[in-house]
Amino acid sequence: MKAPIRVAVTGAAGNIGYCLLWRIASGDCFGHDQPIILQLLEITPVLERLQGVIMELEDSAFSLVHDIIGTDDANVAFNDCDAIFLVGSRPRSKDMDRSDLVAANGPIFVGQGKAINANAKKSVRVITVGNPCNTNCLIANANAPEIPNSGFSAMTRLDQNRAGGQLAKKAGVPVATVEDVFVWGNHSNTMYPDVVVGKIGGESVSGRFDSEWIRGEFLTTVATRGKAIIVARGASSAASAASASIDHMRDWWQGSSGRIVSMAIPSEGWYGVPKGLIFSFPCRVSADGVITVVEGLPVDAFAQAKIDANIAELESEKAAVSGLL
Amino acid sequence: MKAPIRVAVTGAAGNIGYCLLWRIASGDCFGHDQPIILQLLEITPVLERLQGVIMELEDSAFSLVHDIIGTDDANVAFNDCDAIFLVGSRPRSKDMDRSDLVAANGPIFVGQGKAINANAKKSVRVITVGNPCNTNCLIANANAPEIPNSGFSAMTRLDQNRAGGQLAKKAGVPVATVEDVFVWGNHSNTMYPDVVVGKIGGESVSGRFDSEWIRGEFLTTVATRGKAIIVARGASSAASAASASIDHMRDWWQGSSGRIVSMAIPSEGWYGVPKGLIFSFPCRVSADGVITVVEGLPVDAFAQAKIDANIAELESEKAAVSGLL
Repeated sequence: MKAPIRVAVTGAAGNIGYCLLWRIASGDCFGHDQPIILQLLEITPVLERLQGVIMELEDSAFSLVHDIIGTDDANVAFNDCDAIFLVGSRPRSKDMDRSDLVAANGPIFVGQGKAINANAKKSVRVITVGNPCNTNCLIANANAPEIPNSGFSAMTRLDQNRAGGQLAKKAGVPVATVEDVFVWGNHSNTMYPDVVVGKIGGESVSGRFDSEWIRGEFLTTVATRGKAIIVARGASSAASAASASIDHMRDWWQGSSGRIVSMAIPSEGWYGVPKGLIFSFPCRVSADGVITVVEGLPVDAFAQAKIDANIAELESEKAAVSGLL
Repeated sequence: MKAPIRVAVTGAAGNIGYCLLWRIASGDCFGHDQPIILQLLEITPVLERLQGVIMELEDSAFSLVHDIIGTDDANVAFNDCDAIFLVGSRPRSKDMDRSDLVAANGPIFVGQGKAINANAKKSVRVITVGNPCNTNCLIANANAPEIPNSGFSAMTRLDQNRAGGQLAKKAGVPVATVEDVFVWGNHSNTMYPDVVVGKIGGESVSGRFDSEWIRGEFLTTVATRGKAIIVARGASSAASAASASIDHMRDWWQGSSGRIVSMAIPSEGWYGVPKGLIFSFPCRVSADGVITVVEGLPVDAFAQAKIDANIAELESEKAAVSGLL
């Protein structure tokens, strides 16, 4: 039997956390032969609710779960961690715009970055889910100088999955037949789902659907999907966000099997994106977890304008938190 | 690739349903190579919320999910089904006692039993999760005369998992080392978790812990766990109930690999339980899904009194719904 790995989840008693923990515990993410120790972080006022979640995890008798730790101390939660899901964040209240949200979350991710730096394994893999996730990741990354940049990422897989789902629905085929559709940029309405090398059943997406639909209704549906879920369900996306974070971390942990997947990672200047911005690129992941940006894909004027808009938005978010970097 | 199977879930937009659907869709229940078509039933006033859940399922881009149908018509939901999770039920309101709850749920399960009878495959496997689940199952079973009794079951796996979790915690070991602990009777506070052949790390549970603890604190903790979760979490067990239903159906679908598991099934008179009562027994399941009650286990006076109490409770629930059988 493999030795257990330590997996931390922040915001563990929240709605996404509640969906995510059972997916991790069942083996969906790290493999069905990989024992785990769950290290769960919550803010102090929610510790009793977290205790209830831990009780339910105990009541689920997962054979892979070797121990469960609940705490309000990030140093305890991140101790010796192999993988971290940064899910908890300050939600947007009615009177906040996006820049307020960025500013309100900054201090949380300064503290968590420092705690990761001081306590986690140097090989830790961090996915940032809590929004604004790209900039929250930027802050955590900047405050963890001893952890390699390659250990930090933010989640745009939900946008990719939404795009794949829409294409499958339009084509009337199972989503498993959709390949290599990916997302550029920021996990916000500005993100750009690109079908330039996307295929459905081996046939190119752009050959199957006209560009008016791809650049119009398709793009708008994916960009505004979060709001549509809230309207229909009366609550924000939780299970689908958790599921996308599982997909992201699973592909990072076990490899993407040659498929192109979307990961927001610290730019090394690829596709003209300024170095250091946490930007979603088309990526492949090797079986041992090395992420490679797929370079040289065609970028037409429409796509370039979308990439530029994402750069501008992320530069602006970065400027708003410059004191924390 | 295997042909897709049809899996129905009732109460699909409820809290347990929301946890359950992603576990089914990921392959945790029917296997990671088994495509599925999800057929989701809700009451009419909740159809918009169900649509939101379906949107999130689409947004999760599960490779095993070939189609998703949402409906308020049980005849559509159960059409040609291979497996059914009866999760939806009328919850207990403040002024209801258990007999009121039994009476309020009866008509729902008459209708669903008839719809299963008319529409599902004859080989369908039904798990009843919605409470009072044993008696709800009894009603559905009675109203589906063309489906074999062996296709009906109710869930006591949550009680078994809770018992296993408590034993592992007391022993300070992973729950994977706990084996062959099972539950007798009704999924209610009356249920009896039996450790007579239970083992922890190969050692007998009764040799490891004294009977005062097993018959006292252990039994009480398992029996009152549902209430303790509500107190701590501020909401009733959802993810752990969903997880137990996955365990139950997975072992039924893929076999229990020689382990003893708890399933409430129509009694054939085993251990003196009146024929036809839906009663939780120690069971083993073969790889092709045949459930065998493990007979001849020792039953001491304490256990017999508990079994008798469960028989009496289930007979009383049966009498309350006799007009529906």
